[in-house]
Amino acid sequence: MTLLLIIITATTHFLKAEDGHQLWLRNTSAKRVKVVSPRKSPVLTIAVQEIKNGWLGKDGAELKFDFVKDGSITNDGFRLEGNKIAAKTDLGILYGSYELLRRQYLGKSDQNYASNPSYSRRILNHWDNLDGSVERGYAGGSIFWRQGDSSLQLSLADIALYKEYARANASIGINGTVLNNVNASAKILTTAYLQKVQSIATVLRPYGLKVYLSVNFSSPVTVGKLKTADPLVPAVRQWWAAKAKEIYSLIPDFGGFIVKANSEGQPGPQNFGRTHVDGANMMADALSPFGGIVMWRAFVYQPSNEDRTKQAYNEFLKFDGKFKKNVIIQIKNGPLDFQPREPFSPLFGAMIKTPVMPEFQITQEYLGWSNHLVFLSTLWEECLQSDTYRNGKGSTVAACTDGTLDKRTFSAIAGVSNIGSERNWTGHIFAQANWYAFGRLVWDNKLKSEDIADEWIRQTFLSPTEKKMERTLVKPIKEMMMQSREAAVDYMMPLGLHHIFAEGHHYGPAPWFSNKAIRADWTSVYYHNADLLGVGFNRSSTGSNAVEQYHEPLRSTFNSLESCPEEYLLWFHHVPWTYKLKNGNDLWTALCYRYDSGLQRVRAFQRIWDSTKGLVDDERFKSVQSKLKIQSRDAQVWKDACLLYFQQFSKREIPYNLERPVYELDTLKKLTKSKDYE
Amino acid sequence: MTLLLIIITATTHFLKAEDGHQLWLRNTSAKRVKVVSPRKSPVLTIAVQEIKNGWLGKDGAELKFDFVKDGSITNDGFRLEGNKIAAKTDLGILYGSYELLRRQYLGKSDQNYASNPSYSRRILNHWDNLDGSVERGYAGGSIFWRQGDSSLQLSLADIALYKEYARANASIGINGTVLNNVNASAKILTTAYLQKVQSIATVLRPYGLKVYLSVNFSSPVTVGKLKTADPLVPAVRQWWAAKAKEIYSLIPDFGGFIVKANSEGQPGPQNFGRTHVDGANMMADALSPFGGIVMWRAFVYQPSNEDRTKQAYNEFLKFDGKFKKNVIIQIKNGPLDFQPREPFSPLFGAMIKTPVMPEFQITQEYLGWSNHLVFLSTLWEECLQSDTYRNGKGSTVAACTDGTLDKRTFSAIAGVSNIGSERNWTGHIFAQANWYAFGRLVWDNKLKSEDIADEWIRQTFLSPTEKKMERTLVKPIKEMMMQSREAAVDYMMPLGLHHIFAEGHHYGPAPWFSNKAIRADWTSVYYHNADLLGVGFNRSSTGSNAVEQYHEPLRSTFNSLESCPEEYLLWFHHVPWTYKLKNGNDLWTALCYRYDSGLQRVRAFQRIWDSTKGLVDDERFKSVQSKLKIQSRDAQVWKDACLLYFQQFSKREIPYNLERPVYELDTLKKLTKSKDYE
Repeated sequence: MTLLLIIITATTHFLKAEDGHQLWLRNTSAKRVKVVSPRKSPVLTIAVQEIKNGWLGKDGAELKFDFVKDGSITNDGFRLEGNKIAAKTDLGILYGSYELLRRQYLGKSDQNYASNPSYSRRILNHWDNLDGSVERGYAGGSIFWRQGDSSLQLSLADIALYKEYARANASIGINGTVLNNVNASAKILTTAYLQKVQSIATVLRPYGLKVYLSVNFSSPVTVGKLKTADPLVPAVRQWWAAKAKEIYSLIPDFGGFIVKANSEGQPGPQNFGRTHVDGANMMADALSPFGGIVMWRAFVYQPSNEDRTKQAYNEFLKFDGKFKKNVIIQIKNGPLDFQPREPFSPLFGAMIKTPVMPEFQITQEYLGWSNHLVFLSTLWEECLQSDTYRNGKGSTVAACTDGTLDKRTFSAIAGVSNIGSERNWTGHIFAQANWYAFGRLVWDNKLKSEDIADEWIRQTFLSPTEKKMERTLVKPIKEMMMQSREAAVDYMMPLGLHHIFAEGHHYGPAPWFSNKAIRADWTSVYYHNADLLGVGFNRSSTGSNAVEQYHEPLRSTFNSLESCPEEYLLWFHHVPWTYKLKNGNDLWTALCYRYDSGLQRVRAFQRIWDSTKGLVDDERFKSVQSKLKIQSRDAQVWKDACLLYFQQFSKREIPYNLERPVYELDTLKKLTKSKDYE
Repeated sequence: MTLLLIIITATTHFLKAEDGHQLWLRNTSAKRVKVVSPRKSPVLTIAVQEIKNGWLGKDGAELKFDFVKDGSITNDGFRLEGNKIAAKTDLGILYGSYELLRRQYLGKSDQNYASNPSYSRRILNHWDNLDGSVERGYAGGSIFWRQGDSSLQLSLADIALYKEYARANASIGINGTVLNNVNASAKILTTAYLQKVQSIATVLRPYGLKVYLSVNFSSPVTVGKLKTADPLVPAVRQWWAAKAKEIYSLIPDFGGFIVKANSEGQPGPQNFGRTHVDGANMMADALSPFGGIVMWRAFVYQPSNEDRTKQAYNEFLKFDGKFKKNVIIQIKNGPLDFQPREPFSPLFGAMIKTPVMPEFQITQEYLGWSNHLVFLSTLWEECLQSDTYRNGKGSTVAACTDGTLDKRTFSAIAGVSNIGSERNWTGHIFAQANWYAFGRLVWDNKLKSEDIADEWIRQTFLSPTEKKMERTLVKPIKEMMMQSREAAVDYMMPLGLHHIFAEGHHYGPAPWFSNKAIRADWTSVYYHNADLLGVGFNRSSTGSNAVEQYHEPLRSTFNSLESCPEEYLLWFHHVPWTYKLKNGNDLWTALCYRYDSGLQRVRAFQRIWDSTKGLVDDERFKSVQSKLKIQSRDAQVWKDACLLYFQQFSKREIPYNLERPVYELDTLKKLTKSKDYE
């Protein structure tokens, strides 16, 4: 190690404290611009304001909005050319305006650029409960709901915040938002709550943000006072039709419903002996007169003996082609549940006649909450670019969902929001990058995570067109972000390990978690199966045969221990401790190196971040520094817990050139509550 | 870093679990030996037993005890030659027997060897309270006293334990023990307690272990019911004389008293307007008819404005030559209080007409208790070899105290014991090495710590004459032990920092500790004086001028920032953060490297120890492994606490190539109770 010593003093660099509330929208410019629009609308008014507020082009220039009937522009796409933004729709102009401003801010010399959205519906899912709590939320309470909110009126502060929220979403192309948790309270469909939804929709509308709602399948009983919610009973169908009519009378551009049915205790059509098709189509019929859609979640599994990861496919594939045109099946990226790494869900490549949409998780339920710096864009990119081989090579998850393989009337993609009432929106400054990246990636699913990171860093930490901090700030932070998800996989669950989290809170490690009183597929031992011979879940043809749900050649690739990619090794195979990996290390040794590498990477992140002191304002600097300390301590806990636990089975030593555990396994086993980690 | 991977399996090496109770005396041998002794005595009986129990020489050999009038043998010294142990005294034969067995165990080929003790009195100080607690004890309760001990009778278990205790001490040459705390309860001088002391002395006597007692200066009042303890009042003097007579009637070879007077709230002659001389001489007069000595502690300081480190010298030097012949002044190695590193106490080189004796602390009050692996032999060797220049070059602390510079009727040295009621005696297996090293070093103060470590390792972990584990066990463990004190200095108080411990328990860091309600010299800020300019205690001629207490050339060496050894830099100087050290680093940077190096070294110790798995029995292996984990976590806490605290003053960054802190300063400040670190 060289004794290179870099001391950066903050003498020449003058930084205003920032609390992160402005997100990536920190620009205001004094330069003047004249904007010429052929027509007026609330959306266009915002576009004009934004251009005038942030213009970094030639002082006194003129910019024209141009409505064209150009075949190369689809949906709300746009084309920037010279002093013109061309689009087919008002929203196209707005998105083009944000892109123009972004390019100016980033100092991109080429101002000619065209872009069309990959998905027509780009939606945030807020898992916000009506009592103001947020399921898997780590940035304060709900921005939409409050406990004891009697009036359900928006305050001026609410309106201001929702405008900021809508603006941030519009700036990255998000055009829909589900305002309540998929574990839905039926109350959301009462008139009082719908009136509040109407108020919110009114604020969001000029930014192109449509509202959607999560609905509880039992609503006809709970809210409508019917005796059943059976989807084939006419009164039930009428109730939903009437409810849809009521909603659309309040919110003419209402987006539609999302439904979590017959999953983890939620009611659904199966409660009445009906199928997911019966349930989804009933709601589709209610919404279709008004142009609404139904997003029906495929995240269903039973406490059966069948491998949990196979159940969504088994349940839904048989219904392919039976859903109404305005139903879309919403599928989590992996077949399990938002793990640090999973192979893609085979359902993406299986449903042919039914549109499917990916559900990503922006909030870091399984990735260290808002304490760990994990840039999730690489995870989503990995999923979108995974080849399902549905129609042969090139049938990526992106192509299966964005309309490339099948022409559909609409396409969609969802992300579970990480937004809360904290001043900086997301708890961790770098969690803002995940909100940003989700928007950018679902607008254009061919974008590279590295480019998204680059854009975000410059807008979040640099001044407009800043070039000086390329080496000292942009490059190191980008490297950190690009490595961050792999680091988390390494210190949490390398080589295909999955779901060895502590029960309930899913924050810390608990590979030892086992409880005969609850269903096996909610325990850790169900997933890792460690024994004296080896570790991992056998999903090959000699095991649960989950590999059969993938198309060839993937099925064979995954099925064979030799050809299975090492990152999915313990996902698909129960592997002997002594099994030799490609680099010559046996499995146990490789696990040790991965866990240690995860920890060392986090320490490297701390060094990188600390070296930006004086380049980033003090408030955000300290906030991130403090979070990285937590992550560093947590990575040590993860490494020690997992290695000491698995060592009981491997009966092998941790290679002696690696740093030793500093905790006792017995002590770590006592860390069962999430607050133990605080 | 190479990916060298050493996996050691415990298949060929068969190890019996050991709980550490046997210390370094693990040998029993089936070999026969005939021992010929010209006379009999309890001491010689033990010598014969030990030889027969542990003989590793030629089977069936004959060994002779030989009493000689050889001028080269002094005191209880001995000479080993061929099949003979020559000595002047029975104890000389016993010590020679232990040395012979040790040499056989270690496989030393040269069996001819002579050795005389450096000090005539080699004493353990037990800070054991009569309620069974041990002040600064970290290995359970007292082995001598129990709470609610009404009978004060020894049980059979007590007698067995005291024999083991005496044997262990005899095996390393310790010949005296103070049974109670220097913060003494007067109750020890009541007849009931003296009778228990008599019983203990009876068990210890055949092993050459004399008992001494700590006495409370107020005893004539508390026990004797006198109105005063004024040392010049005849009734008081008579009381002490009568008490001495009573003691010697019970214990004819009683060693004498140790007195902590007028220090930290203990009573003393100053309470009656008298001096330390008055007090010490009164006791000396009482003991002298019976051959007893008084060890009068120089550890006195007042809550005055005078630098605390100067006070013992100021108080005692003026009395030089005024003490009775059987008084000796007991001086802690450094002028403050058993810190991880201090320069030697200048009093060693100042008292010329009065004998002085070093007091070392074996128990790790300031060195991580029995949780941290710190081999203290190097600390003591450093002190003993420090040159006071009293009579010019070569006037080491050893020479000033062992009779080399002054012929005295006796010499002495004391160590504050780390022994308690825990099964392994000392809490940490490696703390046994400190007990062992103290004995070996005070027997022969020219021994090298490395050789002592080598002996201890082989006797503690190896079989007799074992050679196979030289590279895998002896060498790495020895390196670890030899580095361990420097590592502790680095992660606790490098570059001359001192006494920045948490209040009271002295375990964790608290450089921030400051409390207007208590005396300044019991706070941390008093000692480090950190401010925006620099850090350290100015004891140079421009400060407290403590340097004047040292002889030239030391005085000038210490006085000048340029010549002051870097390990004492902040002890003697308030040094600017930007001051350049010899290697070119400025002070702040150097501090950062030291703290980090301390942490990294402990991690290296963990690697070293873990690599001995299978070579050391599982019970002791796990015990040490677990302690090293604690030490590793503590080193992180120390590094983070001190760097983050001092950074508030230096306003500088930790070099970016170093691992970053993982804790928040505010969190660490809350760790005020010792149990917070458990």
